[in-house]
Amino acid sequence: MDVLEYPDYPPSLNEQQQEYLLTNLKDWSIAHGLAVRTPENPSGPQAITAPVTLFPSLFPRICFEQARSVAKAYNELYSAIASDEEWLGSVVEELIEIDYFMAELWKVHLAVKREGYVQPLNLGLFRSDYMVHVDPSDATMPLCVKQVEFNTIASSFGGLSTQVSAMHDHLLKKHAYPETTSSLIKDSSLQQSSSAHDLAKGLAAAHQAYGASSTGNPTCVLFLVQESERNVFDQKHVEFALTGSHGVEIFRLAFGRVLKDTKVDSNRKLIYTPPHLPHERFEVSLVYFRAGYAPIEYSDAKAWEARLHIERSAAIKCPSVLLQLAGTKKVQQVLATPHSPHLKRFLSDPAQSEQILKTFAPIYPLDQSEAGQEARKLATNLKTAARYVLKPQREGGGNNVYRKNIPGFLRELPESHWPAYILMEMIEPPAQQNVIYRNGGMHKGGVICELGVYGACLWKNGSYNGEREVKENFEAGYLLRTKGDSSEEGGVAAGFGSVDSVCLVDL
Amino acid sequence: MDVLEYPDYPPSLNEQQQEYLLTNLKDWSIAHGLAVRTPENPSGPQAITAPVTLFPSLFPRICFEQARSVAKAYNELYSAIASDEEWLGSVVEELIEIDYFMAELWKVHLAVKREGYVQPLNLGLFRSDYMVHVDPSDATMPLCVKQVEFNTIASSFGGLSTQVSAMHDHLLKKHAYPETTSSLIKDSSLQQSSSAHDLAKGLAAAHQAYGASSTGNPTCVLFLVQESERNVFDQKHVEFALTGSHGVEIFRLAFGRVLKDTKVDSNRKLIYTPPHLPHERFEVSLVYFRAGYAPIEYSDAKAWEARLHIERSAAIKCPSVLLQLAGTKKVQQVLATPHSPHLKRFLSDPAQSEQILKTFAPIYPLDQSEAGQEARKLATNLKTAARYVLKPQREGGGNNVYRKNIPGFLRELPESHWPAYILMEMIEPPAQQNVIYRNGGMHKGGVICELGVYGACLWKNGSYNGEREVKENFEAGYLLRTKGDSSEEGGVAAGFGSVDSVCLVDL
Repeated sequence: MDVLEYPDYPPSLNEQQQEYLLTNLKDWSIAHGLAVRTPENPSGPQAITAPVTLFPSLFPRICFEQARSVAKAYNELYSAIASDEEWLGSVVEELIEIDYFMAELWKVHLAVKREGYVQPLNLGLFRSDYMVHVDPSDATMPLCVKQVEFNTIASSFGGLSTQVSAMHDHLLKKHAYPETTSSLIKDSSLQQSSSAHDLAKGLAAAHQAYGASSTGNPTCVLFLVQESERNVFDQKHVEFALTGSHGVEIFRLAFGRVLKDTKVDSNRKLIYTPPHLPHERFEVSLVYFRAGYAPIEYSDAKAWEARLHIERSAAIKCPSVLLQLAGTKKVQQVLATPHSPHLKRFLSDPAQSEQILKTFAPIYPLDQSEAGQEARKLATNLKTAARYVLKPQREGGGNNVYRKNIPGFLRELPESHWPAYILMEMIEPPAQQNVIYRNGGMHKGGVICELGVYGACLWKNGSYNGEREVKENFEAGYLLRTKGDSSEEGGVAAGFGSVDSVCLVDL
Repeated sequence: MDVLEYPDYPPSLNEQQQEYLLTNLKDWSIAHGLAVRTPENPSGPQAITAPVTLFPSLFPRICFEQARSVAKAYNELYSAIASDEEWLGSVVEELIEIDYFMAELWKVHLAVKREGYVQPLNLGLFRSDYMVHVDPSDATMPLCVKQVEFNTIASSFGGLSTQVSAMHDHLLKKHAYPETTSSLIKDSSLQQSSSAHDLAKGLAAAHQAYGASSTGNPTCVLFLVQESERNVFDQKHVEFALTGSHGVEIFRLAFGRVLKDTKVDSNRKLIYTPPHLPHERFEVSLVYFRAGYAPIEYSDAKAWEARLHIERSAAIKCPSVLLQLAGTKKVQQVLATPHSPHLKRFLSDPAQSEQILKTFAPIYPLDQSEAGQEARKLATNLKTAARYVLKPQREGGGNNVYRKNIPGFLRELPESHWPAYILMEMIEPPAQQNVIYRNGGMHKGGVICELGVYGACLWKNGSYNGEREVKENFEAGYLLRTKGDSSEEGGVAAGFGSVDSVCLVDL
C-alpha cells in the first residue's frame, strides 16, 4: 500500500513563514469576497474570511480526472431520471410511508401534472460529490473516486470555490509556500475552479432559452434564497458573473415571500413585483433554488403552496420538483445497489454506464429484497459491518451509524423499522493532513477531503415518459471541501469544514 | 445665486427601498473588498464595509472637468519643483526654525547630495484635492474648483475609489435608486474611477524603467507601509492591479523594519530579504511610500536613518525626499500667494499657468513681506477675517482657526509667532446633503465633498537644477471623499468621512 500514500504534507512553518502566509491569506480573501457573514451579525456590514485551508490539499491526479470525466454522463443520467415520471414514481412509492418530505414533493408534481405542465425546459445545476477510495486489493483500480452523494438542488460553494482556488494560486505566486514544497505545490498541480462563471453560464443559457417576454414586462431571474444567509457571498459571485458576463437581471427572493411578491398570471407566467418597486412587474424566466431543499424549510402549508405556485408557473425551475426528487438518497441507493438494472434504463451508451458504475460505492436497502437479505447479513455481522455506514433513507433525517456500532444499533431496532435505513460501503480515503483557518484560529491535523464536480444541463421534455432533448450539457468546475477527521487528539474537530482547492499528485 | 444651487437630493427612501439598497450595498461591498478592518481586530480576518455614501454625491460637471483638465499640468509643476533644489532650499530655509520635520527631511536630501544621487528616475503618484467654490460675484467663473491641498506622498483611497464608483453604478443597475432620481442618477452622470489601475500603471512604468537587475537577484517593488493598517484593502487593490496586469513582484515592508530587512550594497542597490525567505534576495526597483509621511512616524533617530537608507539607494523612490518637500503646505502657500512670481519659474506654458492659477484659493504668509502685511490686515479685521482660515505652517501640526475666531486668536499670540501661520481664503462649497453609511449606521445630513484627482508622473533628473526629462505623465482617476459638515443638529458629525463617487450635474 506504500505507493498509495500521500507524501509528507503540509510543510511546517516557522513564525515568519506563518505570519507571512496568514497576512496574505487574510488580505486576499477579504479583498476578493472569499468571506462569510459573522454569526453575531448575519445581516450586518461585517464579514470574516471564510473557513479555508492554508494549503491546497493533495489529491490524486488520476482521481480528479476520473471525477471530471463522468460529469457529462452524470448530467445525462439525472436529466433522464427527472424525465421519467413512471420510474421516479415507483421509487417514491416505496418511501411514501416513511418520508413525508418526498411524499409532499411528489404531490406537488401530481398537482401540476393534472393541470398540465406549461414549461418543457429544465435546468439542472448539479454537484456530484466524491471521496478518494483506496483499495489495495483491487489490482485494476486501487485508487479511484467513489460518490458520496449527488446534488440536484441548491449546490453551494460554486462562488467561493472559484475564489479559494485563486487564493491558493495567489499564495503560491507570493512565495507564501515554503521552498520545500515546490515539487508539490506548483503551477501544474494547482487547478483553478471555473465554477462561478460556469454556473452563471448555465443559468444564462436557461434564461436565454426561455425567450422573450410575452407580457410586455422585462424578464428576470429569481434567486430563491433563505433569510439571513451567512454564505451569501458564495451566491453573489455567481450572481455577479451572471450579470457581468451575460447582462441578466437578477433579484433575490426569500422563500417565505414567494406568495407575497409573485403571482402566476392567466397564462401561468410568473410575475414578480419587487417590494421596493411596487409599480414594476418582471416576468420571471428562471427560478434558481438556493432554498427550499430541506424538510425544515417547509414548516407549514404556506411553504408547500409556494412551491406549487412556482412549479405550475411557466418559469424554468432549477430544479423542478421531479429533478429534486431525482437527487434524493433513495434514488442514489437504487442506482448503486449491486447488480441494479436501472442504470441501463437511463444510459444507452454502455461505456458511459460503466464509467458511472465505477464511481458507485455499493449501497444496499435493508428490505426483504434479495439485495436487502444480503445487506442484513453484512450489517449484523461485526466483522463485515466494519466496512459500512448505516444511513436513514429519509431526506434530512437523523444521524448515521458507523461500522462496528451497526449490529448493536440494529439489535435495538424493531425489524419492521429496518427498511427506513440503507447500508453503504464506507469510502476509505488515504490519510492526510492540512491546516484549517477558521474564525481567526488555525487547526492542524488529519482531514478528509470531498471533491464536488459541478455540471450544468439544460433540456426539453416532450412528455414525462423519458423523452427529452438535451440542449446544453457541460462540466462546470469543481469544489474541494475539507473537514477535520477527528481521528487525532488535538487535531481538527470533526465536521469542522472549510473550502479548499486541489494540489494534484501522481501516486 | 439660484442657478448655483443643487437640486433637492438625495431622495427619501421608504422602508422597502432602504432595505433593498442597504442589502445590495452590503453584499456588493464585501464581495468586492470595499472594506476596512475593524478597530477591534486591526489585523484579524474580520472586515466591515468601508464608510461609503448611499448615493453618489452631486458634483458640477464643469468643475469635475476643470479638475481633471489640470492634472497633467500639476504633474509638470510638481515634477519641476522637486527638480529645483535651489528653489526648494530657499522655501525650506524660511521654515527651518519652526518645522523640525521639514528641516530633517532637508538634511536627508543634503546627505545624499553630498554622496551623490545614483538614481535619476523619480516617480510621483499625486492627488490634488479640490472643493467646489461658489462665488456669485465672479461673473466669468461663478462656479469652479479650488485646491485644498496637493499630495505628493502616500495619496490614499485610489483602491477604494475604483470600488465605490463601481458600487454606485451597480446600485443604479440594480434599480436601488428610486425612479424619482432617474433624471439625476443615470449612466451618463456616474463616473467610474480608474484610479486603482492607473496608479498601478504608474508604478509599473517606474519598475519597467528601472531596468534589469544588476545583482543577479530578481527585482521587486516594495510597498512601505504602517503597522496594522486598517485601510489595507485600499492598498491591496492597487497591489493586485500591479501584479495582475503587469506581473510585478511586490512585498509589503513596515517602515519600522527597513533597516532589518534591507541593505544597500556597494553599488547602492537596495537589497530586500523577506523574513519568511531568509535565503532569498530581491533587488528593489521602486519603493512606494504608504508610510513615512507624518512627523509622528519619525519618533526616533532610527526612523531618520531608515529614510536616509532608502533615499541614498538606487531604488526609485515614490516619492523622493525632494518630492515630499514639494508637497508641503509651505510650497502650496508660496505658489498661491497673490501675485506670486513662482508659477512662471516652473511652467513655461502660460496657458498651463493660467489654468493652474484658477484652482488656487489665495494663501498669504503672516510674515513681514508685502503679502504678509496685507494678510495681517485681513486677519485682524473681524469682517474680512470671516472669509479666511488660519493654518499652522508646520506639517502635521495643530488645529486650524476659522473665520471670526481668527482676530481674537492672533491677539493672544505674540506677534513673533505669527509667521508660523498662513492665512487661506475659505472655499465656499454649495450646500448639499447625502447619507453616510458607516459601521452599520446611517447618517443623513449636510455634507462637504472633496474631489481628489490622481496623477502619475515619471521623470529623469539630470542634475537638480531644474532640468528634467518627463517620461510618463497621465491623469490617474479620481476620488470623492464626503464628510459631515456638522452644520445641522442631528446631522452627520463633522469629520465623519466616507468614500463616494460623483453624480455629475449641469448647474
